[in-house]
Amino acid sequence: MSKTDVTDSATQKKELNEYEQHYFTSYDHFGIHEEMLQDTVRTLSYRNAIAQNKDFFKGKVVLDVGCGTGILSMFAAKNGAKHVIGVDMSSIIEMAKQIVELNGLSDKITLLRGKLEDVVLPYKKVDIIISEWMGYFLLYESMLDTVLYARDNYLVEGGLIFPDKCSIHIAGLEDSKYKGEKLNFWQDVYGFDYSPFIPLVKREPLVDTVENSSVNTTKCKLIEFDLNTVTIPDLAFHSKFKLQAKRQDFINGLISWFDIEFPAPKGNKPVTFSTGAHATYTHWKQTVFYLEDDLECEANDILEGELTCLPNKDNNRDLDIKIVYNFKASGPDGKERSRKGTNTYLMH
Amino acid sequence: MSKTDVTDSATQKKELNEYEQHYFTSYDHFGIHEEMLQDTVRTLSYRNAIAQNKDFFKGKVVLDVGCGTGILSMFAAKNGAKHVIGVDMSSIIEMAKQIVELNGLSDKITLLRGKLEDVVLPYKKVDIIISEWMGYFLLYESMLDTVLYARDNYLVEGGLIFPDKCSIHIAGLEDSKYKGEKLNFWQDVYGFDYSPFIPLVKREPLVDTVENSSVNTTKCKLIEFDLNTVTIPDLAFHSKFKLQAKRQDFINGLISWFDIEFPAPKGNKPVTFSTGAHATYTHWKQTVFYLEDDLECEANDILEGELTCLPNKDNNRDLDIKIVYNFKASGPDGKERSRKGTNTYLMH
Repeated sequence: MSKTDVTDSATQKKELNEYEQHYFTSYDHFGIHEEMLQDTVRTLSYRNAIAQNKDFFKGKVVLDVGCGTGILSMFAAKNGAKHVIGVDMSSIIEMAKQIVELNGLSDKITLLRGKLEDVVLPYKKVDIIISEWMGYFLLYESMLDTVLYARDNYLVEGGLIFPDKCSIHIAGLEDSKYKGEKLNFWQDVYGFDYSPFIPLVKREPLVDTVENSSVNTTKCKLIEFDLNTVTIPDLAFHSKFKLQAKRQDFINGLISWFDIEFPAPKGNKPVTFSTGAHATYTHWKQTVFYLEDDLECEANDILEGELTCLPNKDNNRDLDIKIVYNFKASGPDGKERSRKGTNTYLMH
Repeated sequence: MSKTDVTDSATQKKELNEYEQHYFTSYDHFGIHEEMLQDTVRTLSYRNAIAQNKDFFKGKVVLDVGCGTGILSMFAAKNGAKHVIGVDMSSIIEMAKQIVELNGLSDKITLLRGKLEDVVLPYKKVDIIISEWMGYFLLYESMLDTVLYARDNYLVEGGLIFPDKCSIHIAGLEDSKYKGEKLNFWQDVYGFDYSPFIPLVKREPLVDTVENSSVNTTKCKLIEFDLNTVTIPDLAFHSKFKLQAKRQDFINGLISWFDIEFPAPKGNKPVTFSTGAHATYTHWKQTVFYLEDDLECEANDILEGELTCLPNKDNNRDLDIKIVYNFKASGPDGKERSRKGTNTYLMH
């Protein structure tokens, strides 16, 4: 039988009765909130970025987009914000209300349940937007569009967004054993040929932790978004990359991750964090794209390519990703080892 | 942001266009099928049960309820079935069709997409029903009701169901460290009191693997279902249990699991498997119910109780589980250590 997590029922249920409006309902899972709160890289980066800019938060009106359990709202309130408005469409916000009250912050934090586009905020403009909107591969199932809506409709001229800079990075990866097992499994499933699954396996990016020692090329920044100016159409991007092999090895796929930077209005060092294989674990892990080819590389061989990322036409929460690559091997057998390819992926 | 698996879109989409009717769509995840196929205890038990009863399958009409990728249908076809009908409402059945054809079994296997209650079978009666319908804690999100519908509407008098016997078991568990961490986390979340989450953590059964060495009481069979005769109302059950502590320890919770048995019409030894902590890993793992109390036990102390399991009124795919217990400690400090309690849980 199929075992799937239950999608947040708040998005499925049309009407909420009185009980459900006031209390966290039985249909909500707290596990995802536990995972996010226990991700200390994520949560402490927000706390540090806010605490470090205490002087800036002082007396300001703050909007927390997708506030969840209210942790970022409470960080802002504790660091001097005049008033924080937290908005979330999930019933988790009913738990957030209890927690905010328990922690004596009800006079400083107003929590509103609903879509940001629908709720009526008690202010026409806010001074600061805070939001933890990032998804896997930064953009998958992200809430960035809602953050940009908040910016365009509520952020005062010169207001700040925490965080406001994010970038996606890519590198080459050796992963022969796992890639082989993952693909070969379908060749012989209890004596039956299940190979029609192989193209599906190949086009599904893997969200997983990768050993940094398996990264075997230089890295390359694919794209950077400045949240102060980026628009929704910009999120459908097309970027070139150029990677150089660091050793004799196989490049079986590409690994990607994102980096985050918070504003530093007082001129101090900005708070940043990375979700790369070189950095401390986060619940975003890394995203791996297996290549059709296993590229046999020597040190300094060049892997050039282009990555295109677009929302899927049929389901705009999914991402269509295309990677075109040109591996140029050098040396006496360089011609033999060189490969060109076009691989398509669907993040769903 | 929330990260939830995408629920099988087949259950969400009302209409299917022509393309979607004929091909596995981009919205379906194969990961759950990979996990189930790679569960060798599960899959080989079905294969062995069918292969061992080859003589019985010979020339028979078989119905595979919730056929998924078609593996059980192919086992039946390879072992002499005259015709196998596989039914599944998920679009995974489009992959099953490709696989069945690739393996040269299209003349023996007919795959129908839809709810069993809606599809028109090419036979009025079938000789054998096969189905892998089991969920966590046996009954959570299980397809057993559909199997019973198939039995009542399609199974010939004297026909067999593979498997046909299943039982749920319970025992005491020492798990102080993890239970403590799981509950204490919410006492201080980055300096804030998140204790309103604690009752939610307590009422959520955990699906996880447990070390058999942590099981510290005798075990007890809660209930057994005979699929030949059980009815849907029987699945809402109430059972007593009596467990005896095996050593001086803490009983922090109860662990439950299920066992499965296949028919053996030719008188040979039935194929069975267990999902208990004492048995080989399966993707069903075990289900843990933390008790409100941490019971300080000595060898031979008695933990008696009653477990009630009912479908949740608001969402009948969820289970309401109630455990009433009476821990009777003996010895000079027995009175002090004895505890009574009533704990309620929601599997969702």
